[in-house]
Amino acid sequence: MPPLRERKKRSAMRAIQAAGLRLVDARGYDEVTVQEIAEAADVSPSSIYRYFETKEGIFLWDEAESPLLAGIAARLTSDAPIEALRSAVHALVDARFERDGSGMLRRLRLIHAVPDLEAAARAEADQFRRALGEILASGTGRDVDDLRNQVTAAVAVGVLTAVIEGWLAGAGGRPFAEMLDEAFDIVADGLRS
Amino acid sequence: MPPLRERKKRSAMRAIQAAGLRLVDARGYDEVTVQEIAEAADVSPSSIYRYFETKEGIFLWDEAESPLLAGIAARLTSDAPIEALRSAVHALVDARFERDGSGMLRRLRLIHAVPDLEAAARAEADQFRRALGEILASGTGRDVDDLRNQVTAAVAVGVLTAVIEGWLAGAGGRPFAEMLDEAFDIVADGLRS
Repeated sequence: MPPLRERKKRSAMRAIQAAGLRLVDARGYDEVTVQEIAEAADVSPSSIYRYFETKEGIFLWDEAESPLLAGIAARLTSDAPIEALRSAVHALVDARFERDGSGMLRRLRLIHAVPDLEAAARAEADQFRRALGEILASGTGRDVDDLRNQVTAAVAVGVLTAVIEGWLAGAGGRPFAEMLDEAFDIVADGLRS
Repeated sequence: MPPLRERKKRSAMRAIQAAGLRLVDARGYDEVTVQEIAEAADVSPSSIYRYFETKEGIFLWDEAESPLLAGIAARLTSDAPIEALRSAVHALVDARFERDGSGMLRRLRLIHAVPDLEAAARAEADQFRRALGEILASGTGRDVDDLRNQVTAAVAVGVLTAVIEGWLAGAGGRPFAEMLDEAFDIVADGLRS
């Protein structure tokens, strides 16, 4: 369990994101200011900027991201990269959807609907890919510039992107975890069909 | 061979991109205006906007992109997706590098060095992924939303991204075609190691 200070920060971030989503659902992304989100969440705008840096950051933040990287790193000591990725993503996704599947759907829909958020999400995915490349380098003992690490990281991000978009296209009708498994099977099979 | 009008347009676009790269190499991306690129290439600024839409577009344009999609579509009638992708990308890359490998290196370096260009390149990669998903859908007879098509398209874009970045990181020292083959082998092997 993380220290108290970290838990308090996360709980504040969750409350700010939830307040932001409520306001944006009601009035649209462009019409809502950081000041208004701060008031709704009962924090100062400067706290919001300290936690999230930008308005986009409020909606992009995904608390699963750093546990995901840690989970992959831990599994790489025993599993092949593809299996480490699959089981780490699974463990988190299952917990997340159990807690708040409809919140996830709302947030992802918003990101895809607002060009500024979509651009910021693409930049974040790129950063995530680089972070994953480093995790793979320490986990496999291969150099960080090793093409195998870079391809694996890029493919993992591609799989997540495809599953997220497919899940959104189906309005969340099909279980995310099931789609994720299918996508990892397709990759493990080497895209042969 | 494309019709005369199309060939003339492409040759003008090539000249504009080359003039842009020369100016930007000398003075930096932010310091060069579309007006100046137009003067250097002896065309009007309105022609530049007609061809490329934006200043970023001048440097993002890659004349290989639509032949690449056509090449993939043609190969999907006989090959598995992974092999269709591999051989279509290869055919183009080989021709391109033979013609102008150092121009490609300069352009890709510039894109990675200028945040506006990098953001536009990410948006383009996303569009390319969608276009590829559609090509795979008609080539395989599967629905465009079929997860297998979407995963394949996302993985293909991931492979290209990883190879481009790896090639840039090595300053073009290793042949692009060789890195591409290695990357496709890694994917065909299902990321097992």
